[in-house]
Amino acid sequence: MPEYKAPLRDIQFVMNELLDMPGHYANIPAYAEVATPDMIDAILTEGAKFCEQELAPLNRTGDIEGCTRHDDGSVTTPTGFKEAYAKYVEGGWPSLAHEEDHGGQGLPESLGTVISEMVGSSNWSWGMYPGLSHGAMNTLDLHGTPEQKHTYLSKLVSGEWTGTMCLTESHCGSDLGILKTKAEANADGSYAITGSKIFISAGEHDMAENIVHIVLARLPGAPEGTKGISLFIVPKFLPNEDGTPGERNGVVCGSIEHKMGIHGNATCVMNFDGAKGWLIGPENKGLNCMFTFMNTARIGTALQGASAAEASFQGALAYAKDRLAMRSLTGAKAPEKAADPIIVHPDVRRMLLTQKCFAEGGRALVYLAAQQNDIVKKAESEEERKAADELLGFLTPIAKAFLTEAGYEATNLGVQVFGGHGFIAEWGMEQLVRDTKIACIYEGTTGIQALDLLGRKVLMTQGASLRNFTKIVHKFCQSVEGDEQMAQFAAPLAEVNKEWGDLTMKIGMTAMKNREEVGAASVDYLMYSGYATLAFLWARMAKVAQDAIAAGTSEEDFYKAKIQTAKFYFARVLPRAKGHAAAMVAGADSMMDLDAEHFAF
Amino acid sequence: MPEYKAPLRDIQFVMNELLDMPGHYANIPAYAEVATPDMIDAILTEGAKFCEQELAPLNRTGDIEGCTRHDDGSVTTPTGFKEAYAKYVEGGWPSLAHEEDHGGQGLPESLGTVISEMVGSSNWSWGMYPGLSHGAMNTLDLHGTPEQKHTYLSKLVSGEWTGTMCLTESHCGSDLGILKTKAEANADGSYAITGSKIFISAGEHDMAENIVHIVLARLPGAPEGTKGISLFIVPKFLPNEDGTPGERNGVVCGSIEHKMGIHGNATCVMNFDGAKGWLIGPENKGLNCMFTFMNTARIGTALQGASAAEASFQGALAYAKDRLAMRSLTGAKAPEKAADPIIVHPDVRRMLLTQKCFAEGGRALVYLAAQQNDIVKKAESEEERKAADELLGFLTPIAKAFLTEAGYEATNLGVQVFGGHGFIAEWGMEQLVRDTKIACIYEGTTGIQALDLLGRKVLMTQGASLRNFTKIVHKFCQSVEGDEQMAQFAAPLAEVNKEWGDLTMKIGMTAMKNREEVGAASVDYLMYSGYATLAFLWARMAKVAQDAIAAGTSEEDFYKAKIQTAKFYFARVLPRAKGHAAAMVAGADSMMDLDAEHFAF
Repeated sequence: MPEYKAPLRDIQFVMNELLDMPGHYANIPAYAEVATPDMIDAILTEGAKFCEQELAPLNRTGDIEGCTRHDDGSVTTPTGFKEAYAKYVEGGWPSLAHEEDHGGQGLPESLGTVISEMVGSSNWSWGMYPGLSHGAMNTLDLHGTPEQKHTYLSKLVSGEWTGTMCLTESHCGSDLGILKTKAEANADGSYAITGSKIFISAGEHDMAENIVHIVLARLPGAPEGTKGISLFIVPKFLPNEDGTPGERNGVVCGSIEHKMGIHGNATCVMNFDGAKGWLIGPENKGLNCMFTFMNTARIGTALQGASAAEASFQGALAYAKDRLAMRSLTGAKAPEKAADPIIVHPDVRRMLLTQKCFAEGGRALVYLAAQQNDIVKKAESEEERKAADELLGFLTPIAKAFLTEAGYEATNLGVQVFGGHGFIAEWGMEQLVRDTKIACIYEGTTGIQALDLLGRKVLMTQGASLRNFTKIVHKFCQSVEGDEQMAQFAAPLAEVNKEWGDLTMKIGMTAMKNREEVGAASVDYLMYSGYATLAFLWARMAKVAQDAIAAGTSEEDFYKAKIQTAKFYFARVLPRAKGHAAAMVAGADSMMDLDAEHFAF
Repeated sequence: MPEYKAPLRDIQFVMNELLDMPGHYANIPAYAEVATPDMIDAILTEGAKFCEQELAPLNRTGDIEGCTRHDDGSVTTPTGFKEAYAKYVEGGWPSLAHEEDHGGQGLPESLGTVISEMVGSSNWSWGMYPGLSHGAMNTLDLHGTPEQKHTYLSKLVSGEWTGTMCLTESHCGSDLGILKTKAEANADGSYAITGSKIFISAGEHDMAENIVHIVLARLPGAPEGTKGISLFIVPKFLPNEDGTPGERNGVVCGSIEHKMGIHGNATCVMNFDGAKGWLIGPENKGLNCMFTFMNTARIGTALQGASAAEASFQGALAYAKDRLAMRSLTGAKAPEKAADPIIVHPDVRRMLLTQKCFAEGGRALVYLAAQQNDIVKKAESEEERKAADELLGFLTPIAKAFLTEAGYEATNLGVQVFGGHGFIAEWGMEQLVRDTKIACIYEGTTGIQALDLLGRKVLMTQGASLRNFTKIVHKFCQSVEGDEQMAQFAAPLAEVNKEWGDLTMKIGMTAMKNREEVGAASVDYLMYSGYATLAFLWARMAKVAQDAIAAGTSEEDFYKAKIQTAKFYFARVLPRAKGHAAAMVAGADSMMDLDAEHFAF
């Protein structure tokens, strides 16, 4: 199993040096007092310790043991998961980034994101239990009645209870408009929920005394499609007047899925049999309510890609320095040994550096998005909030789809660095592959994100959301004009930034004639956008590093490595955008002309 | 579980229409009499039936059950594996492509490859048991003494015994030069073999009465490195005079590995404790003996990529026609249903067509290589044999590395088409991902193949091997000059064909100054070569299809689909070569300059 060491130096680089999080927090009144540099340092140090010492050691055993469902519908999580969760609650982690009026610590959500990265790298399956609660908390926070908040939110914030999001049914996932679960009004103002939900992460477990399900269902006579879906809160145990869990509600785990990965997380079929629930938000507006915090949920999944890349990179790097095979093509580097460590070989370095680009570049992108989210939630001026919301909306599908695809690639490279040993379970590298694949699927597949980006975000705004971002990139390129060291990054960045607009224009034109062009171009467009966005961030990181060296530093090696990695990104990773550029403008015909019955004979 | 249906129409297209296998067999005296069209048809039909009815149903249960090692070192294979193997032997399948003087049927090895494709698509793990025997048979056939052939080869050909290849040790896989297993001469002319081998596929099992291990080991005082390795035959049971298995030899399965995939195959640690063995070939020439049939073994692994792409494509296609979600962007296609089948969506088609390109293009490439192998082994003229050997040597690393990477991508796309259900084990799609990852690793990783291609095959011949192939491509492009319908394929093919040479020249020049450039460029070079080679084959397939339509046919839909898939390949897949082209000439510095200690802080 790769040993996890929280990459605190790099986390601080991105937070403090790249994104000026201290200045950002100081600018937001809600955070200025609480999110002080000392406080943040202390939280990161404690968080790192918890992840390294408590969560990482449970990752492989969680994969082996998985979860067990018993005949009464109860579910046992893997050894140690429950105890780790108790410590997590005891440490106050669930309440970190939540409102003080429900027992939260009122710290920035972006800080929660950083902690989630470390949790994710050390044990993604475990992290999903508290992770799912966030969705439930966000829903209640935004759309719950004061009473609902009083009853449920405080218990979720404290971590005594956990939450779930019950959307998917066996016949529908991406297309929630056709869901069938029904909600019928009871005489007491509550509703009777009946139906079956699948793929419910953390749907049942033994870690908390109650579970709060947020459920999409249909009222009698509701309009068809997405406009007839309402949102309900359905607790496992109905709360007593004093807030303690009371009568068992009619919602039971029918089975748990056998999956490719994330074995430590219970993925449940949840059967609702007239379960008592209460409406959240207005009737038939369930999807709108749910999607108000979609950006947050998707950034949370983007994080899985970045955090898996980091974990796999750490494992592969340690192995590449240790494993001996063959001699360097330019002469023995470790003549005293039977062979050289494989890190001397260029192709092994190519794999490691690709992982590093995605892990560190992914971190920068996720934190940037989280920073925008802070502003959307808490900035004083409407103008700032609006600008951040637009930027966040644009970056979200890119971060979600690109970083999960890139993270998945990184985990596969990790296996490849290990050679045959990578395929063997005990090394833990193949588990990272299996655990990460789902990130490309849940919270909206790569295809769904791509349609969101190209269709909804870019073309529906006549390109405005893209222009907002390419302007930022353009300004950065201008700001380093004349800087000779930066030219190697600024020139290709400016080129890709311009091409991005040109390609968008082309697709926009063809899409006016044939709407299929949007779907046909979408995933290549998204991947292109991901490579372009990471190019921007790597160029900025190189600039920060270059400035630090110029200013004099005792950490020259660290900053030089940053610049070196940026060089690698531009030389060896960014060129992939060329292939996507050519593919996305090649037209829809080559995929649409074939009759569905003629794909195979 | 995706239901497997042998793609006989497409197999016949590649064999008969693309590669003129009937003419090829008729031209080779050894095959002219036996490999008649009727005989081949009958064999394919029977083979398809066996794979569909006997092997495919055991694929998923094999994954779930895996293999069990007992305290005495014996190993039980999954339910049904043993019985299926008995039927396989009874049907005479092991002897298909082996020499008649040891009980074989003397049919072409390329026909064996076609059968292996069907076996591989239906149940790769099972296919590895007879598959490993091939390596052992080839070794004995080429390097065994008449007595060794008499004792062992006939039992392997009949399938009564199976074989293994024992190369890897825990500290060395790619770098066999540092292996430690030793062989000490006994008084009777045999050797005592002592050491531990890992990752021995089919190393121990309950399917055959004896197992013949081919083992690499080191004689006392042998030169260091690869020039001091000898090859031995070490049977599990020492044969009695009458050929029956006698005394148990000192070779025991110490454990079986827990792996990402191919659970149905027993991957064993084999402990040799003074086991009795006999030298094969000359002392210290073990690696040479082993590598004489390396092309065959690597083409066999290339097949895993193509056959997995086919299996995953079949599963994904059926699902995409059945699963309903959303409406087509150009209006409802199935208005009578709650939503349209997802095959109406361009991005789902992009995924399916990518799988199809790799499955069918991969088939063409593997069969082409197998055809060359027939010629190498059996053509009358030295000149023909030499030309085929050179072409095969050039195509082998491309087929092995590119098709396993492409096949792995195809299995991942299969999961993605299924969305969340793809991640669930019962559908069988994620098993294909897990089973296929190893193909990028064993028989030489993608990195090793890339070095073989660029370093050994291309640069060491001053580009001659590449020129031989690009000439063939060039001639094809010339042959369709003036053909308006073919221009859409011939023009980009000619362009990539020319660029291939230019890129090689550039790398060759920089490599003269810095040898690291070869390793730095190699994998991008290999992937580029793969896309170029498949472009050639797809253009040729389009031409065959076009001619068939022009000549008049009752199967116009089939041929049109072929042309349509070629269009997709050129429009949407081939552009990836651009990214590889740019990356491979970007230089080694960006990967070599970073100190090994500065990859992480």
